[in-house]
Amino acid sequence: PTNAVAKLVGIAQQARKIAADDPRKLIHSLKVGLALTLVSLFYYFQPLYSSFGVSAMWAVMTVVVVFEFSVGATLGKGLNRGLATLAAGALGLAAHHLATVTGKTCEPILIGLFVFLQAVASTFIRFFPRVKARYDYGMLIFILTFCLVSISGLRTDEILDLAQKRFSTIVIGASTCLTVSIFVYPVWAGEDLHKLVAKNIEKLGNFLEGFGREYFETANEKSHETRASMVGYKAILNSKATEESLVNFAKWEPRHGKFRYWHPWDQYLKIGTLTRECACRIDALNACLNSEMQAPLEIRRKMKEACTEMSWECSNALRELAVGIKTMTRSSPADPHMRKAESAANDLKSLLQTPMWPGSHLLDVCPAATVASLLIEIVSSTAKIADS
Amino acid sequence: PTNAVAKLVGIAQQARKIAADDPRKLIHSLKVGLALTLVSLFYYFQPLYSSFGVSAMWAVMTVVVVFEFSVGATLGKGLNRGLATLAAGALGLAAHHLATVTGKTCEPILIGLFVFLQAVASTFIRFFPRVKARYDYGMLIFILTFCLVSISGLRTDEILDLAQKRFSTIVIGASTCLTVSIFVYPVWAGEDLHKLVAKNIEKLGNFLEGFGREYFETANEKSHETRASMVGYKAILNSKATEESLVNFAKWEPRHGKFRYWHPWDQYLKIGTLTRECACRIDALNACLNSEMQAPLEIRRKMKEACTEMSWECSNALRELAVGIKTMTRSSPADPHMRKAESAANDLKSLLQTPMWPGSHLLDVCPAATVASLLIEIVSSTAKIADS
Repeated sequence: PTNAVAKLVGIAQQARKIAADDPRKLIHSLKVGLALTLVSLFYYFQPLYSSFGVSAMWAVMTVVVVFEFSVGATLGKGLNRGLATLAAGALGLAAHHLATVTGKTCEPILIGLFVFLQAVASTFIRFFPRVKARYDYGMLIFILTFCLVSISGLRTDEILDLAQKRFSTIVIGASTCLTVSIFVYPVWAGEDLHKLVAKNIEKLGNFLEGFGREYFETANEKSHETRASMVGYKAILNSKATEESLVNFAKWEPRHGKFRYWHPWDQYLKIGTLTRECACRIDALNACLNSEMQAPLEIRRKMKEACTEMSWECSNALRELAVGIKTMTRSSPADPHMRKAESAANDLKSLLQTPMWPGSHLLDVCPAATVASLLIEIVSSTAKIADS
Repeated sequence: PTNAVAKLVGIAQQARKIAADDPRKLIHSLKVGLALTLVSLFYYFQPLYSSFGVSAMWAVMTVVVVFEFSVGATLGKGLNRGLATLAAGALGLAAHHLATVTGKTCEPILIGLFVFLQAVASTFIRFFPRVKARYDYGMLIFILTFCLVSISGLRTDEILDLAQKRFSTIVIGASTCLTVSIFVYPVWAGEDLHKLVAKNIEKLGNFLEGFGREYFETANEKSHETRASMVGYKAILNSKATEESLVNFAKWEPRHGKFRYWHPWDQYLKIGTLTRECACRIDALNACLNSEMQAPLEIRRKMKEACTEMSWECSNALRELAVGIKTMTRSSPADPHMRKAESAANDLKSLLQTPMWPGSHLLDVCPAATVASLLIEIVSSTAKIADS
């Protein structure tokens, strides 16, 4: 029993941690509960129950399936579901009508054929990358509704009645979701994306700030705190999938806050790609920092000024960019930092070309310089894109 | 109309390309069509239709929703759906019974409360990372079934009858899916994962093979073909999400082919992480190759032997590893290559320590050497993990 208690305590701690890290997750749970209770009670009370019948369960189902974390995802799923039901219902009805007209013997064969062809075509279409990204759920509902309607074995007018009921319950379910999702502590995918991109650029800046200090300190002064704050960039390397799904959701969202209707969401993907590229360079830089082979202090001291300047100015530029993205202003304050970083890089290059080097242990000194110059390339290209 | 025709032709070409790239996608579509037609016809014929009633539509729904590309994903979803329906049905029944016992006035309040609490708790649990990875779909079905059962407003024996029917139709749907999925051209997530990991390591090897040749050639000899085959590694950088989902699916799969039941799937994640790290280094190396600043030929010529040896041997070692993973043999033939690469790296290090360098343009020469030595570190750590 102590084992079980310890496990329960562990789970409770984990739950508290999740809620503390992102309180919106807890709020989202409450929102789902609210929407579901509303729809359930709506369904439970007798007068409505008798008029909606079994198909009212579709409303509950819609709420459970459609309600997602962000407004964009909910809206996308709701629209997908509604439109797919409508389209598939109409097509299924046509298929069913065609099959019944041909007579008793042909009917099952024709229906089987229609179902087969439709399922094959729709499933294949789901593999198209653009459909997969935005309409995957709609295609699923399309297949489902088409099958249900075409094989229902009912008379056409019965189907029409059923379809009308089903569609209206889906609309009720979806609109409940949307209302709760938009008006009770909304979570906008677009805002999340915006913050994520800015945050990632800031993390790069944090690393560079720490790097300038760490690399040129003597060994015993190194603080573990700085190190811990520096490795934050590692999460950026795998941020592609998150960013892509957020962009997909954000495209569904209506105008909100600072975001216009046709906000250039695809720009965020471009910035994200550049950020990842930069993070990759920084990862190489970090490997130099932790490498066993270190350059002797005298060599490092020679490079110290230029390198510190470079990483410091790059760091400032990146942070200005992050602030610029956050506040959505044209990021001009980053430019002077960039210019300083570039001139520092040139200084370093000419320093390396003078023949005053003792020639030993170059192995360790160079990577920092090269990677820093690479960084400059990348930062300048990021600066180009940072618009909005 | 010409515009529309051109668009249609474009879509047809895209479809043909998808089918040609991975014929399994076309086969999967046919499989879905087959499973769906089987279940539909089963449902359509009168004797069965009357005994199963409306709940038979659950069978169709199960097929549409559960049938996924790989066996593991289908099995995982099917089990999630079945078990969640069972558990939620029992709990919902208990909640419903408790509510009806308390009398007419309390009933809706209690039911509303139960639905609310259950939805909040289940939705929150879905945010737990481990639940999200493997049981997300099950939690969704749990919420759905609980709501449907507890608010159904039927007598307990009616619910039991309904629940039994619903469960049996789900079992029919899921087993149809599984049968078709496993016995008609099965797609195993485990096998895909296995191939992907081996392929990624091979891509690293390909880059290094090309690198040795490209970097030390004179500019005009550079072939674009080699370049094109070299950039294959870029896909590796973003492979994390794919690998993780494949591992999740693979864990559901039963014994098949060369894979035992408790195959060490998590090892693949570790290898994948190391491969990505290595790809990140290679990306930095690639940037050196494409950089505007290039070392003069004389300097490159001095390093040529050691560097070519290093990248060639690393490349061989990586390919041997890939073959070793593919054939699942202990990868001993990679070891001698590793040893040669390491000794070449030592040669290069001592070469760099001799004071015979003219001191200029070190900026360009060093990165290749450093990154190559980093690579060696990583390759050796990959070699450690490559077991199975």
